[in-house]
Amino acid sequence: MPPAPLPQQLDELSELLGGMCTAAAGALNRATAALLESRERLAVQVVAGDSEIDALRAQVEELACDALLFHNPVAGDLRAVVAAIRTAGDIERMGDLALHIAEVVRIRHPAPALPAEVLPAFEKMGRVAVQLAVKAAEVVRSRNVLLAAELDRDDDEMDVLHRGMFEVMMDPAWPHDIPTAVNVTLLARYYERFADHAVVVARETVYAVTGQEPDALPI
Amino acid sequence: MPPAPLPQQLDELSELLGGMCTAAAGALNRATAALLESRERLAVQVVAGDSEIDALRAQVEELACDALLFHNPVAGDLRAVVAAIRTAGDIERMGDLALHIAEVVRIRHPAPALPAEVLPAFEKMGRVAVQLAVKAAEVVRSRNVLLAAELDRDDDEMDVLHRGMFEVMMDPAWPHDIPTAVNVTLLARYYERFADHAVVVARETVYAVTGQEPDALPI
Repeated sequence: MPPAPLPQQLDELSELLGGMCTAAAGALNRATAALLESRERLAVQVVAGDSEIDALRAQVEELACDALLFHNPVAGDLRAVVAAIRTAGDIERMGDLALHIAEVVRIRHPAPALPAEVLPAFEKMGRVAVQLAVKAAEVVRSRNVLLAAELDRDDDEMDVLHRGMFEVMMDPAWPHDIPTAVNVTLLARYYERFADHAVVVARETVYAVTGQEPDALPI
Repeated sequence: MPPAPLPQQLDELSELLGGMCTAAAGALNRATAALLESRERLAVQVVAGDSEIDALRAQVEELACDALLFHNPVAGDLRAVVAAIRTAGDIERMGDLALHIAEVVRIRHPAPALPAEVLPAFEKMGRVAVQLAVKAAEVVRSRNVLLAAELDRDDDEMDVLHRGMFEVMMDPAWPHDIPTAVNVTLLARYYERFADHAVVVARETVYAVTGQEPDALPI
């Protein structure tokens, strides 16, 4: 069978990357539910499901190599293919971070991984992170540069939540022990990193579409 | 000026990636010295120096795109170019992690970032991580698959050190406060992640050279 034409392969790449982002959003959504409600079986499902995201990354790279081999793309098309390779790496990492959260839940079960009073903040971090991943999916599918710019702003909310978590723990009146502080620290960092990768995915898409880093654009 | 022949461009890519790894090793070495001895100026130098590693990544991507544009490489050569794009991302991240360590030193200065009794363990983590980065530099320069296999084993030492750090903190007799535990947790994670990226760099090189994931090889 002859290879598909380049525009079709580029569309397929966008579609695969969008699917990866959606899968990562779903994984984080489930990991957060498992974390908030100490649901071990749900955590195990998230861990098991990560291999699907890894398989999607392999598909992206295979398709990207096909596009390079058969069509020798130039200019914006070449940038799109190179960006797809980079972006797939970031989204795979988002899946890994959802997996790390689920693993903490699984290891601590039946004890909850977090003390009750930080749950609302983690619920918010989970919501913001999932929204970022869903928006990143839309950005890679639509290649919408204006929408991409929104992710930088949305991520500020994550940074505020992340910093707030540390301020809570730094209060000498914080009533919990060191193992709890270690868990809160790592879990908060997983959410913050997940969100950061979603932002990078959007920025890489901007670069692919415009040939410029987002900071250089008047948007 | 006509573009260089493909073999020369591939050599240049290896050389640039080796230089990136060496720079990341140097940054982590200095960040560790700054951490162990609370040296603020050294920490500031590490933070300032990260832009050089970022600039090297941009050079790698530019050269990789040139190679794709002008030579339309196939098979192993195409894998080498794609792996270079991926690998540069991992090494840039290693530089970021050295920067994060230096930032903790800078923020805590003149107070030390770590309590005295964990310094020997961090000194070891720093040594192992720098060795991994130096070996990764040799792997990307030499494309030596057997040497690459060593990194997986070397990383086991980091995992032991990293786990040991958590065991120390989990001891109810651990005499430090929550802010200290938070710092130890994050700093230990930065070292562990740095080492992990060095291993990934070696694994990507194996894939580029052999077309197979390292786990599938009889080495």
